[in-house]
Amino acid sequence: MAELFAARWVGEEEPGGPAMRVLDQTRLPTEEVVVDCRDVDTLAEAIRSLRVRGAPAIGVAGAYGVVLGALTGMGADAAAKTLAEQRPTAANLVWATRRVLDAGPDIPGMLAEARRIEVGNERACREMGRLGAELIAELRGGQTRVLTHCNTGALACQGIGTAFGVARTLFEDGGLGRLWVDETRPLLQGSRLTAYEAGVLGMPFSVVVDGAAGALMASDEVDVVVVGADRIAANGDTANKIGTYMLAVLAARHGVPFVVVAPTSTVDLETPNGRAIEIEHRSEDEVRTVMGLASLTPADAPATNPAFDVTPAELITAIVTERGVVRPVTPEGLAEVVRAAEDA
Amino acid sequence: MAELFAARWVGEEEPGGPAMRVLDQTRLPTEEVVVDCRDVDTLAEAIRSLRVRGAPAIGVAGAYGVVLGALTGMGADAAAKTLAEQRPTAANLVWATRRVLDAGPDIPGMLAEARRIEVGNERACREMGRLGAELIAELRGGQTRVLTHCNTGALACQGIGTAFGVARTLFEDGGLGRLWVDETRPLLQGSRLTAYEAGVLGMPFSVVVDGAAGALMASDEVDVVVVGADRIAANGDTANKIGTYMLAVLAARHGVPFVVVAPTSTVDLETPNGRAIEIEHRSEDEVRTVMGLASLTPADAPATNPAFDVTPAELITAIVTERGVVRPVTPEGLAEVVRAAEDA
Repeated sequence: MAELFAARWVGEEEPGGPAMRVLDQTRLPTEEVVVDCRDVDTLAEAIRSLRVRGAPAIGVAGAYGVVLGALTGMGADAAAKTLAEQRPTAANLVWATRRVLDAGPDIPGMLAEARRIEVGNERACREMGRLGAELIAELRGGQTRVLTHCNTGALACQGIGTAFGVARTLFEDGGLGRLWVDETRPLLQGSRLTAYEAGVLGMPFSVVVDGAAGALMASDEVDVVVVGADRIAANGDTANKIGTYMLAVLAARHGVPFVVVAPTSTVDLETPNGRAIEIEHRSEDEVRTVMGLASLTPADAPATNPAFDVTPAELITAIVTERGVVRPVTPEGLAEVVRAAEDA
Repeated sequence: MAELFAARWVGEEEPGGPAMRVLDQTRLPTEEVVVDCRDVDTLAEAIRSLRVRGAPAIGVAGAYGVVLGALTGMGADAAAKTLAEQRPTAANLVWATRRVLDAGPDIPGMLAEARRIEVGNERACREMGRLGAELIAELRGGQTRVLTHCNTGALACQGIGTAFGVARTLFEDGGLGRLWVDETRPLLQGSRLTAYEAGVLGMPFSVVVDGAAGALMASDEVDVVVVGADRIAANGDTANKIGTYMLAVLAARHGVPFVVVAPTSTVDLETPNGRAIEIEHRSEDEVRTVMGLASLTPADAPATNPAFDVTPAELITAIVTERGVVRPVTPEGLAEVVRAAEDA
């Protein structure tokens, strides 16, 4: 099986080390290209150009990147600054580089801190996978057909992922009937990345266009919808990749459980509800083309490209975090798992 | 403005005539290529390879094609047989070629019959456009923001189209605030063809991915959903392009009227309800690629590709036909417009 990872540290003692090894996601799924970033500038470029992406994964890459800076003469401070600038809105990247910097200046201490971030992230993914698989076994049981959206697996998260990690755990437990993979236009994280991960792992899966979820549910081919989250408001309203909300509306109509899987760090208690979540609108060219390649519309066609939508808490059966399952979704339940994480 | 048509007869007296002139839809929207089919084999190839597509449009092309056969020595009978074989499930093509054949053998009589089919189709589109625009003015009024799916305009229908013809009529009446164009994966009839038509006509429009409809409705940017139909059962359940059903479910949740526009010939009184409509599953490659060009998934990724879904009558606000508006959607109302068409 091909190695499934986003970014991995290659130590000084290993051949080619020290380096941050990145599986280039801009080349997937047609080519599996591994890039060994031997200096911070190369790693910074890999982060900027989305060769490695997904908040937890770039957090891990950035953490080791600070160590790389210290080892290669750039220095840890300059490395942390350079890396954090690449994706200015990625809170994880700033947080992770800062943590490693604070563990310095001795290199073994910084390396240990980067490793702790990586291991903590992997452990949180495994815990969400276990809790989510148990929940689904309780809700449905038997061979479960799971529908998911976007990419929430190892490529986004390092570790086994969030929503994808639940499907993977179900699969490893022998309980996955089939994974329906929404292609997730415009950037096709489903057909390009989730299909790649499912294929590497040998999971039973099938890719569908985003418009097909209704037909699948109407013909009783979906047992549960499992998605990730970009931000969860204090009342449980959840922002996630565009197209998630319609899955929740369809699931409610068809009596299909709708489960959100995300670490407690995704819960933002400062945001009271979904109306307070600003929706990012991205470039029209993402809609007008496929990954900048084939042109799909007349060249000057206007397009509108909201990147996320908000699913109201009332449509969410449960939110699975590494600190427990919030079900039903209530402000009190969410506050409790966040508190448990802070106390840990 | 570029000419907006699917196929047009070029008479013997015109330069280059006789010929069936086809706007090559396989080249749109990047190139506007007109093909003059001067013999039946060339026209048959254009129909087979979807250079001209959409049931009403290929009916018109086939009708004139029989005349072309008579004029070019192939003979009307052989032409009708050849043309009808190109799209075996297209009831319109068989019906139209048969009508022209029955009007023979004199060529002026056959030409007049082909013209009657074309004019009748154009008139039906105009009538649906008028009735639909009046309905929407009554339901919403003011500057209406219309969301549509797939391609139902001149390129599919000759004439102004069905659902698109309603939006076009609203636009010409000064009542169209904006047309939201669903890209309509996998074959992108929205982003490729509807966006092209809207652009040529100067309509205010914007292309969105299919997953964005929920976000648009949640932020109150859609006043009415208007779609076509491939088949309407006796109880009003309606089969249309994959992705239509989820629009109806979202519209119901948001109190947005959901209007189907289709000629009475689409109503199949022999099919009692949606459960009796068989859903065509098409090639996995349509999902794995974009129009056979860019590859979107790992090469061997399984895909599932239902081409249509069924919207239950209870979610449809009204069905607009050339013989009147059925509202509410009841078996009796549908039977009445079908009877009116048969009596005409």
